[in-house]
Amino acid sequence: MIDMAQRVYLDHSATTPVARPVLDAMLPYFDVRFGNASSLHEFGREARRAVDRSRESIAGALGSRPEEIVFTSGATEADNLAILGAASARGRGGHLITSRVEHDAVLQAAEWLGANGVEITRLDVDAQGRVDPQAIFDAVRGDTFLVSIMAGNNEIGTVEPIADIGQGCRERGIPFHTDAVQALGKLELSMDGVDMLSASAHKLGGPKGVGFLYVRRGMRLAPLVHGGGHERGLRSGTENVAGIIGLAAAMELALAERAEVTARMWRLRERLIADVLRIPATRLNGHRTESLPHIANFSFAGIEGESLVMKLDEVGIAASTGSACSSPNLEPSHVLVAIGVPLSMAHGSLRISMGRDTSDSDIDRLLSALPRAVAELRAMSPFKVGE
Amino acid sequence: MIDMAQRVYLDHSATTPVARPVLDAMLPYFDVRFGNASSLHEFGREARRAVDRSRESIAGALGSRPEEIVFTSGATEADNLAILGAASARGRGGHLITSRVEHDAVLQAAEWLGANGVEITRLDVDAQGRVDPQAIFDAVRGDTFLVSIMAGNNEIGTVEPIADIGQGCRERGIPFHTDAVQALGKLELSMDGVDMLSASAHKLGGPKGVGFLYVRRGMRLAPLVHGGGHERGLRSGTENVAGIIGLAAAMELALAERAEVTARMWRLRERLIADVLRIPATRLNGHRTESLPHIANFSFAGIEGESLVMKLDEVGIAASTGSACSSPNLEPSHVLVAIGVPLSMAHGSLRISMGRDTSDSDIDRLLSALPRAVAELRAMSPFKVGE
Repeated sequence: MIDMAQRVYLDHSATTPVARPVLDAMLPYFDVRFGNASSLHEFGREARRAVDRSRESIAGALGSRPEEIVFTSGATEADNLAILGAASARGRGGHLITSRVEHDAVLQAAEWLGANGVEITRLDVDAQGRVDPQAIFDAVRGDTFLVSIMAGNNEIGTVEPIADIGQGCRERGIPFHTDAVQALGKLELSMDGVDMLSASAHKLGGPKGVGFLYVRRGMRLAPLVHGGGHERGLRSGTENVAGIIGLAAAMELALAERAEVTARMWRLRERLIADVLRIPATRLNGHRTESLPHIANFSFAGIEGESLVMKLDEVGIAASTGSACSSPNLEPSHVLVAIGVPLSMAHGSLRISMGRDTSDSDIDRLLSALPRAVAELRAMSPFKVGE
Repeated sequence: MIDMAQRVYLDHSATTPVARPVLDAMLPYFDVRFGNASSLHEFGREARRAVDRSRESIAGALGSRPEEIVFTSGATEADNLAILGAASARGRGGHLITSRVEHDAVLQAAEWLGANGVEITRLDVDAQGRVDPQAIFDAVRGDTFLVSIMAGNNEIGTVEPIADIGQGCRERGIPFHTDAVQALGKLELSMDGVDMLSASAHKLGGPKGVGFLYVRRGMRLAPLVHGGGHERGLRSGTENVAGIIGLAAAMELALAERAEVTARMWRLRERLIADVLRIPATRLNGHRTESLPHIANFSFAGIEGESLVMKLDEVGIAASTGSACSSPNLEPSHVLVAIGVPLSMAHGSLRISMGRDTSDSDIDRLLSALPRAVAELRAMSPFKVGE
């Protein structure tokens, strides 16, 4: 058994450890400053001040107003609130435009709407996973109530042209939502044409169970969860005070460190790609440069991604085949299918995703283990892989 | 400024501090055992084992099966999932029975359904806040798809006859949901006729932002939040691992301590009620004995509850007027209106709610401050209060 501290974690797109300063910021709010932010007394007012400060900090980072930040239990809920909430505020019917490479939270919310009277356009992407903004604008109809395109892909890292999409949507008067879970804290995001943006704390050094939806003032949205009227009626339920503080602290830390951390990620990613592509019958999935800095996704012909993940795990390296959310699912990734990866290679994917602490020695460990792991699996495979 | 540690906290129905053993159980899962429970590698498997253990512990405490526990972001979401999910699984229309004293999460979810084609029966209660089971059964129609009655009231503490209600609903084949947020860990709950039960961690020594819905096997329910298919498809989104561990640890602690803690609460509550009722023109709201052990709600003629809460806060005592969720709202409590408290007294309510650490000295502090606070406020009041 390998001790956790000796393991190399290269699955930061699935989740990240809570950074020490973030946890330190959260801790008092569990048992000392534990008030309900809706209570009138000092315990409550103290919690309210902390929630307000966190909301202002996040809004400041986005260049938005505090009242445009709606705290949720995470990005899946935020995506659902954006998509189902916009549909529900409109009433029945209507038309939604999204892409084939979105996160399951967006695709499954759209699927549910599709079964309930909304027409869904799922746009194709190019071989690197990019949506063509013009294809979106061409798909717009009189009853299109929302366009939802992610900022950066969680499986292959490809960055979408959300500034162009947002600008075109704005010109046409169509609200634009973006899932920025992987991009926030890594990219400079232009909020110009963005009407709604989803984010999650645990992808950037904050705790699980908290996220937010940015909702531009004037956006018509119905709540999914009803009750005491928290978050200006858009999301009832006692505020997760410690979680909200952790979310804001994680964003502050990510932005403060961004230049340094992403420069290191870019350098490590280039090393990684150059070295991994020396393994025969291997491809990079996604865009080499129009990418998030922390994600690199590869396919190895003739092997199963799950087997490779397990083989790396045996030597203490944690990576994934793609989205953790669909790990139990043996279907090939919908993202890899959408970018046209041949089925023979779509099953053999490996996603490496880095975090703020990822170092050269972590990448060294991976690069020393990976060629042998691939070779061993290929030796057991009934498929012959050419040199 | 009074130091937080010197303050007396008597608002445990709004929220509770995370108990030390609960926080200790959670802590490793923020930054050491931080994996995503859906990941295939050891970090993920470790998180999955912890979530599984928590689910088994909670199921064991309820006498249910692990797969009947659906983790949510808290009780508001659990109530919404129960009510909106049952309506959505049914399709359009139908009939829901609830009461006038439910939590806002239930009432507002019902309100939303009422605006969307579902007929809602909101049953009256008696002067102590009790629902008559026979009134429920009389209201059942061919299209009744759910009865939702809380286990114990969050404002006045009155316990509802959920065993009788559950049995009658079962005989009639109508699913029965109960919001047990305040009752769990305090009462011995009979799950016999209960098909769904909502609970929250932060009301019983656990963290905010996590709760569960018990869903009896065979219950037809549609999800509110779509995505990666977590929680058997009923609640997508990365599991809040640390929160789930805190929820299970809080339930374990509450059940282990229950006999001792609730005996002390009963004793303190009797002291409190006997002493407070010596203040002239004062009444106890709710049932004296068919009550949760930790809640006592009083009305003082001629004063505003908010003013009383603020006056107690000035001397370092935290209490509330009723539900924290509707604190900013100046309407009289819907619960006090439902039990027929005259408007002159419904505005002058004070809820005292105790926790696992509440001691005689806390109640002494309150009892020494309260008569003077009430007298001072009445002296400033334009209304004359008779002796």
